[in-house]
Amino acid sequence: MTLTPPAPALVGDRLATVGTPSLLIDLDAFEANLRDTAAFVADHGVALRPHAKAHKSSAIALQQVEAGAAGICCQKLSEAYPFAAAGVRDIHVTNEFVGEDKLLMATELASYVQLSVCVDAVAQVNALGQAATSAGVTIDVLPEIDVGQNRCGVTSHDALFELVDAIAMHASLRFAGLQGYHGGAQHIADWVARKETASRAAERAGAFVRALQARGVRCTRVTGGGTGTFEFDVASGVYTEVQPGSYAIMDGEYGGIAWHGAVRPRNSLFVLSTIMSATRPGMVVCDVGLKGLAVDAGLPRAVTWAASEGPPLAYIAANDEHGKLQIIGSPDAGTSHLLGQRILVTPGHCDPTVNLYDQYVCFRGDRVEAIWPIDARGLSR
Amino acid sequence: MTLTPPAPALVGDRLATVGTPSLLIDLDAFEANLRDTAAFVADHGVALRPHAKAHKSSAIALQQVEAGAAGICCQKLSEAYPFAAAGVRDIHVTNEFVGEDKLLMATELASYVQLSVCVDAVAQVNALGQAATSAGVTIDVLPEIDVGQNRCGVTSHDALFELVDAIAMHASLRFAGLQGYHGGAQHIADWVARKETASRAAERAGAFVRALQARGVRCTRVTGGGTGTFEFDVASGVYTEVQPGSYAIMDGEYGGIAWHGAVRPRNSLFVLSTIMSATRPGMVVCDVGLKGLAVDAGLPRAVTWAASEGPPLAYIAANDEHGKLQIIGSPDAGTSHLLGQRILVTPGHCDPTVNLYDQYVCFRGDRVEAIWPIDARGLSR
Repeated sequence: MTLTPPAPALVGDRLATVGTPSLLIDLDAFEANLRDTAAFVADHGVALRPHAKAHKSSAIALQQVEAGAAGICCQKLSEAYPFAAAGVRDIHVTNEFVGEDKLLMATELASYVQLSVCVDAVAQVNALGQAATSAGVTIDVLPEIDVGQNRCGVTSHDALFELVDAIAMHASLRFAGLQGYHGGAQHIADWVARKETASRAAERAGAFVRALQARGVRCTRVTGGGTGTFEFDVASGVYTEVQPGSYAIMDGEYGGIAWHGAVRPRNSLFVLSTIMSATRPGMVVCDVGLKGLAVDAGLPRAVTWAASEGPPLAYIAANDEHGKLQIIGSPDAGTSHLLGQRILVTPGHCDPTVNLYDQYVCFRGDRVEAIWPIDARGLSR
Repeated sequence: MTLTPPAPALVGDRLATVGTPSLLIDLDAFEANLRDTAAFVADHGVALRPHAKAHKSSAIALQQVEAGAAGICCQKLSEAYPFAAAGVRDIHVTNEFVGEDKLLMATELASYVQLSVCVDAVAQVNALGQAATSAGVTIDVLPEIDVGQNRCGVTSHDALFELVDAIAMHASLRFAGLQGYHGGAQHIADWVARKETASRAAERAGAFVRALQARGVRCTRVTGGGTGTFEFDVASGVYTEVQPGSYAIMDGEYGGIAWHGAVRPRNSLFVLSTIMSATRPGMVVCDVGLKGLAVDAGLPRAVTWAASEGPPLAYIAANDEHGKLQIIGSPDAGTSHLLGQRILVTPGHCDPTVNLYDQYVCFRGDRVEAIWPIDARGLSR
């Protein structure tokens, strides 16, 4: 007995027949984001290394590399596997790790791809060096420096020197530069304030680079930045490589901040949902809730009707598998005619929303043009 | 080239070597919850139909049926497939649905299992009746009544009569009773207030039942209730069946409400995580964030050290793949000795947290005793 749910969509289907909830990509907007970002970053003579933690799909990573990316970033070692298997040759793990299982993954990955990883403790360096030596592989290592995020990364020049010295003790490790990422800067709504915060982060990174130079250590790679700041980071004179992830698909949180520069990524990510209950005035219920929408950045802000005209809606509550929608300004409006109508919901935060789905249903106009597996979904080790 | 991440754990492993982050079940607590709840509900002469949306694992559902459950609940049609495939014979979908793909799933499922579903609109009834007739299957239908949740379900006796009359027009549909679920009652912290809210919900359900009786319609099944209220629902004289889901594993939100009755489910669900960065005083960073913990019910409240002794921790911020932990009361404490130590985190909300993982690592004492696939993960259609 093969008893599995039918596919929600096939290539060539009309959008109107796609099963809900489904995660959609608007290909026109997506392709513009890939193209425009690659051109913008290249114009500044800086490398683009998109962060795959946002989209988690090797189909997208291969397009990013095809569009000129130097490689990709992953946040976790296990996450890197599907990208390595799909043929991405250069992967930077933007994170520290501890533990035997992690060391096994790092050395296995390093035998297939050009792997770089982050460290912020001598103990991590020594464990990795011993594992790499045993496995007969060489791993590029980038100490992480704290440039304002107050999370991981060394906070002093002396601590950085200790890491660089420790790396030099292992023939299987190569000091490959620095990582400085300021996640808190990415979503600052005011464009000028965001620019200033990015500038301070770059100054901190620059000070670490100069401190190394003063000790005779050349730093040829400084990687960092995200979707909210890469337009500033590429012009900083410090970063040689930027790591935006969300730019390809975007989300409600990034859509809600100001964009006054040359960079204007468009939202290409939506959740398609159906009104499956409409029994009371002024309110309807759709079929996507907490299991299809991450709410850590708040409830979805933008809700539009997929095809039909309809009243303006506000998504006011997410239960596990239900979303409550209020008809804006019409608490007494009849709703029964809205049953079965379909809506497009813009998720508040793309990364954890994407991580809930197994595939993207990619459309152009009203047709499904591609299905891309989210092959790194759930790979958080 | 087979390039996939290694398994995080194997049966027989010591807990100390399980890869992180991993979702754990403490089997002693889990088994006590299954046993005690089944006995308590049976003592009241009421049927137990556990909600599988909480655990999403056919391995658990089969144990619940073995322990005496009448069947299971699912929230979505696609979610029901792995349970049907695993041999669960009686599945109630506690939700309304609209659309051709949903009707196909309903009729397919009904050819394999005893299927019941909810409706709250005549249009749903007629679409389902036609689909069931075409497919040659019979489906049990339970109108949903609103008992205080203000979400789905009919709000008047007249609307219920219309549904019952519509069901009677289709030979392929069988009126099988009523569903009345008050999700908002489940997490009321005060035990007496929760009992009173559950009592009002049961009164409303009872009024619907009597209204049907007055029209000559017998209602032999009234299903509803959840983990927070089933201790009251079983004694209501109205509910013939209760639908708790979280009771088997529990979470921070349910652990934070008062339990003064005979029902005292124990927390059996944890996320195992590693401290992977510790570069500053008073704060460490662990390897589980938004992609391994749902935060819709708040950040994790309980954090304990897995093996070693260590200072008390508060989980203060969740990023995509990082959790920031503060050492309670010691902002200046040194932290480097905590790097690599492991913690147990109690998720705030079990359902959407479970939906992030592909398997449970089940332990007893310090050994992994079983690995249970979360085979309904992501099935939200």
